[in-house]
Amino acid sequence: MNEKQAFESVKKQLKQARYDHTVRVVETATKLCERYGQSVEKVRLASILHDYAKYRPSGEMKNVIKTTEWLSDDWCNYGEAILHAPAGAALIREELGITDEEILHAVVFHTTGRAGMSEIEKIVYLADYIEPGRKFPGIDDVRDASEQSLDYGCLIALSNTVTFLISKGHPVYPDTIHAYNELLKTRGLK
Amino acid sequence: MNEKQAFESVKKQLKQARYDHTVRVVETATKLCERYGQSVEKVRLASILHDYAKYRPSGEMKNVIKTTEWLSDDWCNYGEAILHAPAGAALIREELGITDEEILHAVVFHTTGRAGMSEIEKIVYLADYIEPGRKFPGIDDVRDASEQSLDYGCLIALSNTVTFLISKGHPVYPDTIHAYNELLKTRGLK
Repeated sequence: MNEKQAFESVKKQLKQARYDHTVRVVETATKLCERYGQSVEKVRLASILHDYAKYRPSGEMKNVIKTTEWLSDDWCNYGEAILHAPAGAALIREELGITDEEILHAVVFHTTGRAGMSEIEKIVYLADYIEPGRKFPGIDDVRDASEQSLDYGCLIALSNTVTFLISKGHPVYPDTIHAYNELLKTRGLK
Repeated sequence: MNEKQAFESVKKQLKQARYDHTVRVVETATKLCERYGQSVEKVRLASILHDYAKYRPSGEMKNVIKTTEWLSDDWCNYGEAILHAPAGAALIREELGITDEEILHAVVFHTTGRAGMSEIEKIVYLADYIEPGRKFPGIDDVRDASEQSLDYGCLIALSNTVTFLISKGHPVYPDTIHAYNELLKTRGLK
């Protein structure tokens, strides 16, 4: 699947505002690739497709997750906001024939992060967080941190996310804390 | 071991200020037992002994944890502040002959919490957090929540703890997030 086909596929799945967000994530991810010497092809494809499942009903997303062998059922226990990420990965595999594991992982973990993220996963995670349309408290700290390193950008994004979720009384997917703890240890190394 | 012996044992291990804290934790835990209909014996013994290892050198605490079969080595990967809890449990077993699992668990998890805490564990965890000598942002919210239910008190304490740790750039022991997520689900049920 080339980029043009991918854009056409997600355009059918998304409302206009969400599609515009997707375009900005792709642009931001491309800039991060240039800055950090990462080849763009997989990053751009994952970025185009990252919100593919955003408007599926939560019942369908849960069903997709539970019937997809390579996804943990535990995704269904932490609120609805994170379902579209793993469900989206399963659906782009099933409906669009995307089988590249690096792309699939980048989609699965684009909302939560995880310990052991690849560079591709980090770029998609961060681009989704800092694209210029995002406006929320602390976002400029994450943008500044992203200028220093991918790891530091992800660390500050993860910190903000956990603090926000707790302030709202929302659950925290454990992989988010595992990612935070891991990046805290490697801070300053990249 | 009776209470008098336990107090004498910890007095030798602790500086005066920490011993005074321990006495306040025992008093607070006793009140929580009365409020929530929990028998006091094990709660008071766990409270007396909860900081037993507080002043052991971190190298000794890590060694104790790594050589204690029923403690995960993973305790050693999240900073020094939490070591005294699992190490203390191992040491009161080894040095004082405490073998009651409910008491040992209450000491192990008094700093981090965990999913599946017993009532005894919740009371010791909460008493350590809210005893009247504690002064930090948000403490009155935890005290108020503790009047509503043990679960709600623990939930607000866990929330505060995670937010504080992240604001300081400290690691978060995963059991703390597991406890938070679990109590969020049961909120309002007790």
